Amino acid sequence: MSGHEPRRADGEPPNDPHGAGSGQGRSVPARILRSLLHAFGDPRVDVVLWNGERILSPDKTPVATLRIADSRTLLRLCTDPDIQFGEAYSDGRIQVDGDFEQMLEEFYRGADASGSVAMARRVVHRLHRKRANTLQGSRANIHHHYDIGNEFYSLWLGSTMAYTCAYYPTPQASLDEAQLAKMDHVCRKLRLQPGQHVVEAGCGWGALALHMAQHYGVRVTAFNISREQIAYARRRAQAAGIGDRVRYVEEDYRNIEGSYDAFVSVGMLEHVGIENYPALGELINRCLKPDGLGLIHSIGRNRWKPMNRWIDRRIFPGANPPSLKQMMDLFEGCRFSVLDVENLRLHYACTLRHWHALYEQSKDRVAQMFDERFVRMWRLYLLGSIAAFTTGEMQLFQVVFSPGRNNQIPWTRDDLYQPRSSAVPVVETREER
Amino acid sequence: MSGHEPRRADGEPPNDPHGAGSGQGRSVPARILRSLLHAFGDPRVDVVLWNGERILSPDKTPVATLRIADSRTLLRLCTDPDIQFGEAYSDGRIQVDGDFEQMLEEFYRGADASGSVAMARRVVHRLHRKRANTLQGSRANIHHHYDIGNEFYSLWLGSTMAYTCAYYPTPQASLDEAQLAKMDHVCRKLRLQPGQHVVEAGCGWGALALHMAQHYGVRVTAFNISREQIAYARRRAQAAGIGDRVRYVEEDYRNIEGSYDAFVSVGMLEHVGIENYPALGELINRCLKPDGLGLIHSIGRNRWKPMNRWIDRRIFPGANPPSLKQMMDLFEGCRFSVLDVENLRLHYACTLRHWHALYEQSKDRVAQMFDERFVRMWRLYLLGSIAAFTTGEMQLFQVVFSPGRNNQIPWTRDDLYQPRSSAVPVVETREER
Repeated sequence: MSGHEPRRADGEPPNDPHGAGSGQGRSVPARILRSLLHAFGDPRVDVVLWNGERILSPDKTPVATLRIADSRTLLRLCTDPDIQFGEAYSDGRIQVDGDFEQMLEEFYRGADASGSVAMARRVVHRLHRKRANTLQGSRANIHHHYDIGNEFYSLWLGSTMAYTCAYYPTPQASLDEAQLAKMDHVCRKLRLQPGQHVVEAGCGWGALALHMAQHYGVRVTAFNISREQIAYARRRAQAAGIGDRVRYVEEDYRNIEGSYDAFVSVGMLEHVGIENYPALGELINRCLKPDGLGLIHSIGRNRWKPMNRWIDRRIFPGANPPSLKQMMDLFEGCRFSVLDVENLRLHYACTLRHWHALYEQSKDRVAQMFDERFVRMWRLYLLGSIAAFTTGEMQLFQVVFSPGRNNQIPWTRDDLYQPRSSAVPVVETREER
Repeated sequence: MSGHEPRRADGEPPNDPHGAGSGQGRSVPARILRSLLHAFGDPRVDVVLWNGERILSPDKTPVATLRIADSRTLLRLCTDPDIQFGEAYSDGRIQVDGDFEQMLEEFYRGADASGSVAMARRVVHRLHRKRANTLQGSRANIHHHYDIGNEFYSLWLGSTMAYTCAYYPTPQASLDEAQLAKMDHVCRKLRLQPGQHVVEAGCGWGALALHMAQHYGVRVTAFNISREQIAYARRRAQAAGIGDRVRYVEEDYRNIEGSYDAFVSVGMLEHVGIENYPALGELINRCLKPDGLGLIHSIGRNRWKPMNRWIDRRIFPGANPPSLKQMMDLFEGCRFSVLDVENLRLHYACTLRHWHALYEQSKDRVAQMFDERFVRMWRLYLLGSIAAFTTGEMQLFQVVFSPGRNNQIPWTRDDLYQPRSSAVPVVETREER
């Protein structure tokens, strides 16, 4: 089918789109493509088909040109665009020239405004079975994403290896500065005091736990079910000489025991599953002291919708960012008091742009480690995520809470925005930044 | 029945409770009272019955002594304590000596922990019909509370006449300082710029609208259905010489029209009714510009429960503080993005303590204006509200939000906590503080 000849019903040359009849190809594939683009709100992209036929952006200021390699790819896009765009781009059956990030924004904005795309997604979502976030399912889901190799992530996450939204004091801050500022922001929101004991659920490569112990003088017990991450985190704590102050536990958060002054979880809730929020709330209620504070940092939504299915299939199985309303299921059951919510959506776009820039610098190494398909897959994921945060498709919520009876809560938020009284690290360590 | 003699089954004197048998009266009324107190978690109160019989606090450190005038009052308390305590206190059939505020806290904490009280309340709530917050119902509900006389409120609200939670930079701030700080906090959260047009839903006696116009150089259109409040607000704006910059409209918020840079509502949502949140969200969506910001300040709950029925009957008909989860119905329908939530619960306890102190100073005047019953009724309301905020029964949420596509949102919250660049009022006025 790739040699398909476009129809020329009106005799105009298909490759001269600025001719008569709004200058767009009139072939069957061209018409199919136009109706597909229309369902996505007529994004400002030009499309070039396998036969050279061009379908131009309606407003003549395209942000990118999309090249489709064959008719089969087009047909697949029609049946299931969410999955098939990602698959075709990964395979190289779709090429993108121009501003890929902005093109994805156009598609997000358009799909968001389009009733037909939303309805199709709802139907498909019901047909689609996910691996549940049971103890076993979570382990498989997390292994899929986080255990593909510490070296891979170290190529583009910056020196902190923090794989969550950073906090940019200004949009000009560097990635590492912003990750450190995020850790400080979290520690300050928790009003950590030397000697306290913190429990962390989902600790990634261990950067936050390390930072808390080093700079706030607390003990940390940090949980994670990713074996590779835990091994990396332990080595890092040993190297920093604070192995005795930070304990990394390879266990599911559901097995947390003990009594703590603070509970923190940065970037885990997205993987917990909304149906498990009441149980997570009860767990926190058991392990947080009556005068303790908690902080949950999670990707979220303004209104819930299912996760993009290609991301779910290829990148993040089982992820499900909640709306704030859904997140409240975690707090209301045990009558936690929500003290502070901050939305850092645009900081995540900024973080992802830094990750993407580093990723592109390392793409040859990534290709060696995996293959070209993998390189393209992760590029689409990073750029698509930027677009999701820029368009408001996704949010980033930091929520501070406490047991409902705690009257030792912060009086105002003034203290978060004053210079720290001590610039000296609370614990001297051997680690360099 | 008020001459009822206590039984002395064991022969001990009823007025010597420190005697044998844990020293408590053994009469039928005493036993009834003890089981009632037990349902409220055995609060630290002594009770003296009409016949002089004393029922002592179990832990011997009572915070107050409650005197019950007759057996009928006790029986009524048993059938419907939420309503009947308020009624009996208002009538003087219950007297309280000692720390009334702390005693109410004891009852709140105890009832909260008691399953039997919660269940009884749920049953009673279903039987109880409220006046719905239709256009007509709201007008009646609001008239009941706010139109009982500007002079009455001016006795104890302080010079701003702001009848909502203040913001105390420190717990030592005065009421007027804290009310002005609250207005600044709200204006700064909305990032008001000179020349902008703000719409306010539920403007009370007009203090915030006035403050915005005077100190932030904006125009304000402010809505309220309380006739007395609107008349007062207009006089105040005229006196301040900014009648041309603030327009007070005696209309229901549902009739707001136009297009505004900012939407603000301080202390109205409690009266809107949870069933009306989606419609309020749509209204805000219609009237807020795409790059606008909104702020809603409302009493709330950690988890929803019905309003105290005595407060609903005597003080605030139709009020219904939402949980954050319920509040999200306002934002999710139109995909508003929640940017910032701050919980100022303890600031409301502080505000109410200041109001109560001024109220007690003016109680003779209040008795002249109304009667002793009214004096006692409002005392109970103010002290009960302090207890509700101190015990975590009620919360105070300030929520900042924007249309979901707005990328002109504040980058961080730093600016809220820096000294204002201009200490000079934007508009010079004739009004004195």
